[in-house]
Amino acid sequence: MSTPAQVGRAAAEELAATLRVDAAERDRAARPPVKEVGLLRGSGLLTLLIPVELGGGGGAWPDANTVTRIVAGADASVGHLIGYHYLHQWRSELFDRREITERLRRQTVRHSWFWAGVSNPLDADLTLTPAGDGFTVDGRKTFATGAMVADRLVVSAVRADSGEKVTFTVDAGARGIGYLDDWDNMGQRLTASGGVVFDNVAVPAGDVLGVQPDDPLAPGAVRISLAALGFQLILCQIYVGIAEGALAEAAEYTRRRTRPWTLSGVDSAVADPYILAGYGELVAGVRAARLLADEAAAALHAAAERGSELTAEERGAAAVTISAAKVLSTRVVTETTSRIFEFAGARATAAAFGFDRFWRNARTLTLHDPVAYKAREVGAHFLTGEYPPFTGYS
Amino acid sequence: MSTPAQVGRAAAEELAATLRVDAAERDRAARPPVKEVGLLRGSGLLTLLIPVELGGGGGAWPDANTVTRIVAGADASVGHLIGYHYLHQWRSELFDRREITERLRRQTVRHSWFWAGVSNPLDADLTLTPAGDGFTVDGRKTFATGAMVADRLVVSAVRADSGEKVTFTVDAGARGIGYLDDWDNMGQRLTASGGVVFDNVAVPAGDVLGVQPDDPLAPGAVRISLAALGFQLILCQIYVGIAEGALAEAAEYTRRRTRPWTLSGVDSAVADPYILAGYGELVAGVRAARLLADEAAAALHAAAERGSELTAEERGAAAVTISAAKVLSTRVVTETTSRIFEFAGARATAAAFGFDRFWRNARTLTLHDPVAYKAREVGAHFLTGEYPPFTGYS
Amino acid sequence: MSTPAQVGRAAAEELAATLRVDAAERDRAARPPVKEVGLLRGSGLLTLLIPVELGGGGGAWPDANTVTRIVAGADASVGHLIGYHYLHQWRSELFDRREITERLRRQTVRHSWFWAGVSNPLDADLTLTPAGDGFTVDGRKTFATGAMVADRLVVSAVRADSGEKVTFTVDAGARGIGYLDDWDNMGQRLTASGGVVFDNVAVPAGDVLGVQPDDPLAPGAVRISLAALGFQLILCQIYVGIAEGALAEAAEYTRRRTRPWTLSGVDSAVADPYILAGYGELVAGVRAARLLADEAAAALHAAAERGSELTAEERGAAAVTISAAKVLSTRVVTETTSRIFEFAGARATAAAFGFDRFWRNARTLTLHDPVAYKAREVGAHFLTGEYPPFTGYS
Amino acid sequence: MSTPAQVGRAAAEELAATLRVDAAERDRAARPPVKEVGLLRGSGLLTLLIPVELGGGGGAWPDANTVTRIVAGADASVGHLIGYHYLHQWRSELFDRREITERLRRQTVRHSWFWAGVSNPLDADLTLTPAGDGFTVDGRKTFATGAMVADRLVVSAVRADSGEKVTFTVDAGARGIGYLDDWDNMGQRLTASGGVVFDNVAVPAGDVLGVQPDDPLAPGAVRISLAALGFQLILCQIYVGIAEGALAEAAEYTRRRTRPWTLSGVDSAVADPYILAGYGELVAGVRAARLLADEAAAALHAAAERGSELTAEERGAAAVTISAAKVLSTRVVTETTSRIFEFAGARATAAAFGFDRFWRNARTLTLHDPVAYKAREVGAHFLTGEYPPFTGYS
Repeated sequence: MSTPAQVGRAAAEELAATLRVDAAERDRAARPPVKEVGLLRGSGLLTLLIPVELGGGGGAWPDANTVTRIVAGADASVGHLIGYHYLHQWRSELFDRREITERLRRQTVRHSWFWAGVSNPLDADLTLTPAGDGFTVDGRKTFATGAMVADRLVVSAVRADSGEKVTFTVDAGARGIGYLDDWDNMGQRLTASGGVVFDNVAVPAGDVLGVQPDDPLAPGAVRISLAALGFQLILCQIYVGIAEGALAEAAEYTRRRTRPWTLSGVDSAVADPYILAGYGELVAGVRAARLLADEAAAALHAAAERGSELTAEERGAAAVTISAAKVLSTRVVTETTSRIFEFAGARATAAAFGFDRFWRNARTLTLHDPVAYKAREVGAHFLTGEYPPFTGYS
Repeated sequence: MSTPAQVGRAAAEELAATLRVDAAERDRAARPPVKEVGLLRGSGLLTLLIPVELGGGGGAWPDANTVTRIVAGADASVGHLIGYHYLHQWRSELFDRREITERLRRQTVRHSWFWAGVSNPLDADLTLTPAGDGFTVDGRKTFATGAMVADRLVVSAVRADSGEKVTFTVDAGARGIGYLDDWDNMGQRLTASGGVVFDNVAVPAGDVLGVQPDDPLAPGAVRISLAALGFQLILCQIYVGIAEGALAEAAEYTRRRTRPWTLSGVDSAVADPYILAGYGELVAGVRAARLLADEAAAALHAAAERGSELTAEERGAAAVTISAAKVLSTRVVTETTSRIFEFAGARATAAAFGFDRFWRNARTLTLHDPVAYKAREVGAHFLTGEYPPFTGYS
Repeated sequence: MSTPAQVGRAAAEELAATLRVDAAERDRAARPPVKEVGLLRGSGLLTLLIPVELGGGGGAWPDANTVTRIVAGADASVGHLIGYHYLHQWRSELFDRREITERLRRQTVRHSWFWAGVSNPLDADLTLTPAGDGFTVDGRKTFATGAMVADRLVVSAVRADSGEKVTFTVDAGARGIGYLDDWDNMGQRLTASGGVVFDNVAVPAGDVLGVQPDDPLAPGAVRISLAALGFQLILCQIYVGIAEGALAEAAEYTRRRTRPWTLSGVDSAVADPYILAGYGELVAGVRAARLLADEAAAALHAAAERGSELTAEERGAAAVTISAAKVLSTRVVTETTSRIFEFAGARATAAAFGFDRFWRNARTLTLHDPVAYKAREVGAHFLTGEYPPFTGYS
Repeated sequence: MSTPAQVGRAAAEELAATLRVDAAERDRAARPPVKEVGLLRGSGLLTLLIPVELGGGGGAWPDANTVTRIVAGADASVGHLIGYHYLHQWRSELFDRREITERLRRQTVRHSWFWAGVSNPLDADLTLTPAGDGFTVDGRKTFATGAMVADRLVVSAVRADSGEKVTFTVDAGARGIGYLDDWDNMGQRLTASGGVVFDNVAVPAGDVLGVQPDDPLAPGAVRISLAALGFQLILCQIYVGIAEGALAEAAEYTRRRTRPWTLSGVDSAVADPYILAGYGELVAGVRAARLLADEAAAALHAAAERGSELTAEERGAAAVTISAAKVLSTRVVTETTSRIFEFAGARATAAAFGFDRFWRNARTLTLHDPVAYKAREVGAHFLTGEYPPFTGYS
């Protein structure tokens, strides 16, 4: 019998095969990923993290990471969508509100919900105002990946009365939520990462997941703060996935189409010494980046499993591992997606192949937050033992 | 009074300023560069290489290189067009047919001709068949940059009767020439680099520039063979131009729009230590690449000036310098066009800015022929004294 | 209770601490590592791989890899000695001669034997001549790391009569063995990697481990051929260890001695943005290289455990993983050992610190066989599925 | 007839040939460079910068840069000595004290003086106390390259009474000057870069070159401040020289001794594709670095020639060019001196060849001041137009 990890992996591979067929074409069309979310629904992958007894796949956090990577290898936008879907589910459970968690899990299974979130830390906070039994939320956020095609949103806002930072879920189709559909960027074109406007949107009290304590070391607070690390980790997985996908498609092209260079003295591109060693260097780097991303996923999983016992030091150790993975995977994916062309040759630049999308996706997504500051975090810890601060990015 | 070099440079800067305004937009539209060739005509740059007494700009080959670089910095496609225009004029004169040269120069001035060529060495040769006083040419070639928007073409074909490789010019609108308009690639989108079909196209004897001798060391043959080096050199100049353009536009963005990173502790992006040093490293590399490209242009110019005295060794020395410039400028432009994003930030990936075109253009054009074999040539000369062989690429 | 892995690790850390104290001084003196082998004996690490019931540490092959890495971090020469000690023990057991294995294990425990080997594939073969019940061996080999300070040697030679390649062990002090003591290289100075001369050295039949079959796919042959991969793997571990050691000592120096740069605006070197991010980048790379080396160790261990069932494909998969680890660790260790100086500063070049030894050791050892051919192997497998050939290096 | 540049170049090549013979051996011995200064005297190069009519070589500042580079290619320590010799002569003339300049030039010719200086900006200032007609100087400085083997020193000190920063020359053998002979570093071992102690050393008023005005923009002050740039430039030239020397000696080794790799399929190392392309990449980088260093030398020369007219902006432009050259040459020399080994092979690590000295010299000297801050200067100028501040390093 297959394990949840195997089932998830197989479903991810199958979805990836489907996505790969027209990934270049869909990238050019750059339509909102409605069809793609439909494929995610059809794949069964949306419930991977939900226990078997509730009708889910029973997978664990590292399995979700693996699935994200596989899907991202075929279509980095869809990898981003599924990765954030898992991330938002996972982080909604960090608040340890069991009854809400269970309700959300059941609804996710029943309705095949696709999740997204609204939380760009660089924008002004959304405002949460007490109203009747619950709240209303107002404001505007940019870069809300997947929100406009989602069923359920995880949102953070600040209470107008108390200044508390509150996280809640809300129906993505709730009255008063507007989607700006203003994502038109050079990469990750199918992620629907446009802005969202909240205009007097009702938030029932029962949908509040919790409050991020002011004191980052308050009971439970350390665990809640893992959410920021989850974003960083999922980005790593997408980077690694893009690099793997780029290598795989370039290799297929090299095998099938690349002509041996006229001055090479060999009769096949796959016998060219520079092409062989060139791939070898990239493959070695990507394999190592994947292992470090795996280690980071395991570290974050272990930290979350510690529950309210989780200490700032344990969180810090996971944060540093994730930052190291981000530094390495950023370097690897930008190098890999650019260098593959040298081994495929001039005709591989035909627009029909769309091979530039790997670099465009990688370059766009690796700018999420500046990698130099991740390198700095790793170095600071190595030199001084200091852990990354608790922020929206670390 | 200004020198021809200064006049050319000023005109190039002015054209570049015009091109820069809508370069991103034109890249997206990817129409055949009819309007752009019109701008070239209007700029006066098309006659830069023609002596003042014939109504031209009186510039020399190195000036044409500089102009190419400046224009490429604003629009790499147009830089490619003007660079090849100069190249084809220049190489048409290597055959030392003074009367033809003079006639072509006068016609270029009078009609403001834009030149292109048809000569991909990897395709099957075109066939030249004696017919009456002249010839007819038949066959098909891919990747004929600029041909479909050109006035005059420089074409090479092989005589069906003698097997000689003949170079001639032909009216780009001559009966029997068909343009496939099949260039649709990820970069250099406005270069009209599609295929050309020749169907019984008449070539008057008076338009034959000459024959490339079988013996590469025959009198005059060494000089004629410089044409292949000219292509390599012009490519270098475009690479350097792209890198300069990418740096300039990224810097402008960083100055005007990039926000200081939230964890940087500085209040302006231009005070961020990583942004400052990051630009500095790229700028240093690009400056060095430009100097090496300049040295290569001077070397090729000097070789051509040697006329029929030019020896294989002198040609070889120029070839090695050009190959070194190509190795370096390839590395510099691919690195620069990818790394600038790290200093501009996530919002610089908005499609409206089109900053990915620098990388797409660079990556497309740097695949013209595999750079590893250029590195190999440089290394072989350094180790053994051997010069690059006489080929279509060296 | 501690596991063998933990015990080994603790002993390795303790030995490393001892070695670190005067590593720079011993590097300068460059004496044959007699004292160092004494420390290895005293550490209990020589018997790590031997089962507990025979008086050994009960560790497994991956544990030996870890120990090698830790020791190499403090003293790359001693890491090399202990790594090859484990390697030669391990490979002596690939022949599956249980009685010999058990005897050698017992003797190793009883006499605290330090093992080395004689096997440079690039030299002419040693000659094995039948003599009485056994053989005599003659010839000369270069680069026999550790041999002159070893107790027991694993040697390969070719039978004069049959042409078979035979592997046997021999007392390192046997009559007729001469040590040239001619290792005087820029790095790995304490590895006693000089040449060995065999002059009519007696090899009892009972010390013959076995014959490497001509047919690499003969029963058992695949497993025997893992020896070559073991060398490659142990080299990786030493590279990773050197990189880790270099980072650790540089960091200690930066913390204690490096002065903040006068134009940095910070009051401590560990607050310098370039130093922080610089370390961070190196640390990320080294962590990834370690994970890939670990994966390689696990792969080789699993292959060996397959015994005579091991297929060429399984061997090949392990070989590719090891080659990938070698490519990455080579790149990481050469970069790390050179760049650390930028974060320690000018005064860290004082000879007393001896920090150049990390680079000298890394650079010397990474030339064991050319890494470009390892990259080629990885690329060939990725592109074509082809596995590395069965050679002395793959 | 030869130009001064040609004569200097020829003498430098001749000296380099002599130095190359036993450079590795002298590096190991690491004796104070008494013999080497003798060779400099014998070469006639010490008077290169002195006008022909005074008995010198009549060379200009760029010629001195070229000579420095050539000598550094053979022996980086001696390149450092001759480079600083020129630097100190050149900077002594920035004060525009014609009579002193003429006297010093005549004495340099007559006595074949070798110059050095004492000026580490990071140390506490030396103290200059008025005494009789002149001054006495007291204090201690580290890193005074060449001083202990010099005839004449250029020294800066701060007046105890006025706080003015005064520069003067002094007889290196003057009573009260003590040389600590404490330079024992991993590279540049023959530069005699130890500390100097001044104990009541007399400085006649007539040997005072001038005062560095507090106001950096005071008349003449800008020119005087070029001295700091001169140090930076000479360092670049040495870096480029080391890289050129490393390539040349490695290539010679590869040609004569490197064996083709057993799995390469070629029968000569100089036919190995990775060796060929590997050299090619390095050669291209070194050539570009040399051109940028040449441009920097020309820029500094032009700035100095502007005399008291020199503006801060003109100085700044030269400073940025020098910083760019430093960034590039640092990268190139560290990469080149490490990678050459990959093309020479394992046996090239034999201590007898001493090829590690290239990297040790480069790595030591490139730490003179942190290159990240040079990259920062270049980036700051590119982004904001800001010029490097007037400091001891910029």
